Amino acid sequence: MKFPKKGLPQETILKELEEVTSRDLSFSSGRILGSMCTMPHELAIEVFCRYIDRNLGDPGLHPGTRKIEEEVIGMLSDLLHLERGYGHIVSGGTEANILAVRAFRNLSDTEKPELILPKSAHFSFIKAGEMLGVKLVWAELKPDYTVDVKDVEAKINDNTIGIVGIAGTTGLGVVDDIPALSDLAQDYGIPLHVDAAFGGFVIPFAKALGYEIPDFDFKLRGVKSITIDPHKMGMAPIPAGGIIFRRKKYLKAISVLAPYLAGGKVWQATITGTRPGASVLAVWALIKHLGFEGYMEIVDRVMKLSRWFAEEIKKTPNAWLVREPVLNIVSFKTKNLHGVERKLKEKGWGISAHRGYIRIVFMPHVTREMIEEFLKDLREVL
Amino acid sequence: MKFPKKGLPQETILKELEEVTSRDLSFSSGRILGSMCTMPHELAIEVFCRYIDRNLGDPGLHPGTRKIEEEVIGMLSDLLHLERGYGHIVSGGTEANILAVRAFRNLSDTEKPELILPKSAHFSFIKAGEMLGVKLVWAELKPDYTVDVKDVEAKINDNTIGIVGIAGTTGLGVVDDIPALSDLAQDYGIPLHVDAAFGGFVIPFAKALGYEIPDFDFKLRGVKSITIDPHKMGMAPIPAGGIIFRRKKYLKAISVLAPYLAGGKVWQATITGTRPGASVLAVWALIKHLGFEGYMEIVDRVMKLSRWFAEEIKKTPNAWLVREPVLNIVSFKTKNLHGVERKLKEKGWGISAHRGYIRIVFMPHVTREMIEEFLKDLREVL
Repeated sequence: MKFPKKGLPQETILKELEEVTSRDLSFSSGRILGSMCTMPHELAIEVFCRYIDRNLGDPGLHPGTRKIEEEVIGMLSDLLHLERGYGHIVSGGTEANILAVRAFRNLSDTEKPELILPKSAHFSFIKAGEMLGVKLVWAELKPDYTVDVKDVEAKINDNTIGIVGIAGTTGLGVVDDIPALSDLAQDYGIPLHVDAAFGGFVIPFAKALGYEIPDFDFKLRGVKSITIDPHKMGMAPIPAGGIIFRRKKYLKAISVLAPYLAGGKVWQATITGTRPGASVLAVWALIKHLGFEGYMEIVDRVMKLSRWFAEEIKKTPNAWLVREPVLNIVSFKTKNLHGVERKLKEKGWGISAHRGYIRIVFMPHVTREMIEEFLKDLREVL
Repeated sequence: MKFPKKGLPQETILKELEEVTSRDLSFSSGRILGSMCTMPHELAIEVFCRYIDRNLGDPGLHPGTRKIEEEVIGMLSDLLHLERGYGHIVSGGTEANILAVRAFRNLSDTEKPELILPKSAHFSFIKAGEMLGVKLVWAELKPDYTVDVKDVEAKINDNTIGIVGIAGTTGLGVVDDIPALSDLAQDYGIPLHVDAAFGGFVIPFAKALGYEIPDFDFKLRGVKSITIDPHKMGMAPIPAGGIIFRRKKYLKAISVLAPYLAGGKVWQATITGTRPGASVLAVWALIKHLGFEGYMEIVDRVMKLSRWFAEEIKKTPNAWLVREPVLNIVSFKTKNLHGVERKLKEKGWGISAHRGYIRIVFMPHVTREMIEEFLKDLREVL
């Protein structure tokens, strides 16, 4: 496509954009069931758009926004039982996970760094390993799909720079036995990173609601860093991932001097240089507006809905749960899986079955009505 | 700061946010003179906010937005004289530069990769080198602050995975002798990456206006990749960087399989997983709305303003241009530089002098009135 010579009026462009994007599924369409994203909260959208010009890559220009980021990191640290945390709102869970692995690598003195991680880990770690030159050592899963802590221990050696545990796996929403991983990490003096990109905005509220889920956060001494993404269950606009470190030394280990900035020189620990201050302001506004109780209400609804759906799947012939749900994710297998997947897609459902099962993520935009309609379609095609 | 238990009303939060961020400089305040960011174009803001839920990390869900990204890459490639380019809109120039270095590294077979880059290169390459395990070999600058091509040649060895040239250096807006670097790269069979994060949305228009600036793009056979950032002179909202490769093999060399997505599995070449489709739609809308002629008008105004300012500096006692401007950036030294810097900051100007000079970036939000006021203040404090 050619770069246009002459410009077109705004209305023409908005109309054309509307036409082309009409092929997109949108979260309000009520058809996206397999995504960890959702429609952002209206307040977050308003704040993002109001402050869309703020650049946290040059915090000296925007001291107010910088202060807000410190407060966001403070609130997330508190949510994760850490009195004083160090971190940033970043482009997403992938950047957050890469930053943790990078910090562990930079603080180690091995020439051949290895990271031990569950076979259920997100593919962002594949990017981290490839980029950072860190060998990924995959630990086996137990029959309940949590990582086998014994296998993790067996794989520790002098080159191990860190261990990863998952609090809300991408495929099944399973939470690893983080307390056992933490003990192991402490015993061997190896840092533990917890990928709670999804679970970080679910587990604290679900536990308060009485769901039995293992501890996963800084309460456990072996946990040195946590990924927690506001743009997943936090309902913030993309891009808003989060990384929190227990100590300043981890941030320092990945900081690079930025000398040119209008606001004065700073040390940058993020991969990105220029980065949206609007994301940070939106997250701050949402946490202040919803509070712990507001998030609890949201989590209460989606957890109940997921449990109800799981029971319905058990009653559905030719469909089987992969396992009992832990968080608000339910994954199931069916007879003739790929035929079923294709037919559901034809009916307009935003799902996929590439891991050998269909995954339903009960995000805030998912309603009981959607799920009833989906069940009807599912039973029809089975 | 504690994670709040109870939420607060939206109005309370918006008011508090307004108070805290009143300490920020905003681009509309007319005081930011040293940033490569600007107030995004109103159409871009409207589009971004309208489509804020789109996630290009899961393009199968958003086929319309994916198509728009292909068109954006097509238009940027065309602007850079490439018939068919391969790339993405990414989080910024830093990610774009890292992706280029990563592609060059992954396609090389050396165990000890080295990258040759000008001493004027942006600090994003320091991040790239550290993360990717690539040794940075810094080439000297000539008295005109362009890279010394002879020194680049002298530094080539069997471990050289690539060469970097800059089209619009961060400090001075200087354009390296990219044609000579391209010839060199061709002679030695080494890929050349051009960092036109800033210059990419200036040079094509400035050349059309008659400014004499060396060729810098895919017209030159040695150029294999270009960073070009819509969120700088393209006037798009943050985050919107751009990376374009000449051939598909570079993208393939950095692609990782993403297996979980609701829209089906895809290969991801970006560092980020989830990424804002809204950025891409905003860039598309802007290019369509402004067209080549619209950007030419913007560049015409800021280039003229920068030339006028440079002449004024020449007439100002105790201030000296670092060199004649090439693009819309003018950098100057003064007597008692850090005292002058401090006093200008006290007067509310968003500038800094950390590189040994004060840099004024003539972004679209910078007006003649601002510059006259700045000159008045500058002459007062000198």
